[in-house]
Amino acid sequence: MRVSIVGFGLIGGSIARALRTHRGGGDWHITAWSRTPRPVEQAIEDQVVDRAAASLEEALEGADLVILAAPPLTCLDLIDSIGGSLRRLLPDDATVTDAASAKARIVARADAVRLPFIGGHPMAGREVSGYGAAVPDLFAGRPWVTVPNRFARLIDGERVTELIEACGGVQIQMGAEAHDEAVAAISHMPLVVSAVLVEAIAGGPGRAERADWAATEILAATGWASMTRLARGEPNMGAGITATNAAAIAARLKDVRAAIDEWLSELERKGGPDADALRARFVSAKERLEKSGST
Amino acid sequence: MRVSIVGFGLIGGSIARALRTHRGGGDWHITAWSRTPRPVEQAIEDQVVDRAAASLEEALEGADLVILAAPPLTCLDLIDSIGGSLRRLLPDDATVTDAASAKARIVARADAVRLPFIGGHPMAGREVSGYGAAVPDLFAGRPWVTVPNRFARLIDGERVTELIEACGGVQIQMGAEAHDEAVAAISHMPLVVSAVLVEAIAGGPGRAERADWAATEILAATGWASMTRLARGEPNMGAGITATNAAAIAARLKDVRAAIDEWLSELERKGGPDADALRARFVSAKERLEKSGST
Repeated sequence: MRVSIVGFGLIGGSIARALRTHRGGGDWHITAWSRTPRPVEQAIEDQVVDRAAASLEEALEGADLVILAAPPLTCLDLIDSIGGSLRRLLPDDATVTDAASAKARIVARADAVRLPFIGGHPMAGREVSGYGAAVPDLFAGRPWVTVPNRFARLIDGERVTELIEACGGVQIQMGAEAHDEAVAAISHMPLVVSAVLVEAIAGGPGRAERADWAATEILAATGWASMTRLARGEPNMGAGITATNAAAIAARLKDVRAAIDEWLSELERKGGPDADALRARFVSAKERLEKSGST
Repeated sequence: MRVSIVGFGLIGGSIARALRTHRGGGDWHITAWSRTPRPVEQAIEDQVVDRAAASLEEALEGADLVILAAPPLTCLDLIDSIGGSLRRLLPDDATVTDAASAKARIVARADAVRLPFIGGHPMAGREVSGYGAAVPDLFAGRPWVTVPNRFARLIDGERVTELIEACGGVQIQMGAEAHDEAVAAISHMPLVVSAVLVEAIAGGPGRAERADWAATEILAATGWASMTRLARGEPNMGAGITATNAAAIAARLKDVRAAIDEWLSELERKGGPDADALRARFVSAKERLEKSGST
């Protein structure tokens, strides 16, 4: 299968590495293109990629499977280009998929330009970004959501399934809305909350640092590190994710605000909080986490 | 120095292990007592503790330094007992300190019973609890806040400094209010937010599980794990911490709510969110974290 990876950071690089190390990896001919040429050049040196495309146009030509692994907002533009002015370069039966974190908007765009498209979202990541951080087992055992658009054909689904299997992922087909609501809950909203904590404690954007932050931060321990880990991620990625899934994230943030209000009622109870009621809340949260067995 | 550790879980056990492995560890004669005898019996077998006290009374007798390492609400009761009915068992020049996460209420209690007292808070912990999780280097290089009460004498301060140095901690003397506000910000409020996320996504206490949680949790990844790590901790500890520092935590939760409202304004902007404004928020949060260099 001739696969072309468009955008070559952590996800694109890890897909290339996974395909290359897969049993029968020789069946994959891997072309890559990114706006900045250096990562793909390095991947050629590493023998992870077979061909560096000189342009997006060149990456499309002759491809069986085009994987958009660029930031979310860039992927929307890529769909417009590939479904529009560049359509003539894409073989008729070629499959296009992506790896962006939100699916409703991108699938709708592919529908709008009548491009056969299987939206994809591998649920895997690392704190570090870029091709230099790419690893072949990034997707091993992890869910990889697929969302076919209205123009997807059987062959498109088969190719993407083959890709996911070669990467060791576990395919889960979902509707775009259900996917976006689920990832808003367990991924995108927590990302925003992680930044919110920094804003609340250290100071908001465009404002002076809080006067008490310097004295506070010397006491920061592992709990603070854990809760702010997501806010240390790549800001462009965060902006792309939140811009493309805003409504679902906003709904979850309102649920968070409602839960905070319940805690405030208990913490500010006249005569002081009821320790048993607080304990019941912590017990409930812990039990729900342990019951689910989620990582 | 004859030290008596009252309450023998992760913190009490780690203090004992630290003193035992400290250079010149033979200078410390370690007595321990806890409500359940098994952890102390194990520590005797491990030669980590020299003497198992049969009762709280026996633990106080002859002690130079009494370390209250019980849960926060228990520590408040212990101060009342030791400063009141059990006072006659405590040598006149004995020093009492603690390891609870909030300092204003406990220091005020020690003042109320006119007990010489150095409030203490080693800023260290693990996800696991109990003596079985105790390690000698838990406090190494970590801040250990001290808050003397109005009746503390020079000798009390010297003994606690010696304890902290033997444990490898870095002593930071603070006022009780400043300490409680700082830990509310970087430790206690994040603990509540971690539980709040579970309530918002999986369901609140006493309520049915959210209908969409089962479909959501299969997509949970490392971000969710990171943000809910604190909510997997010991519920009694969480209840004690939030009950004893409720006002400071409530103030920080309101700051969080205000920051959430700013995000909601942006996410629900007419015509869609401004990706540049979202990016600026993520950039600001990341820069504040990186500038501070906090763990």
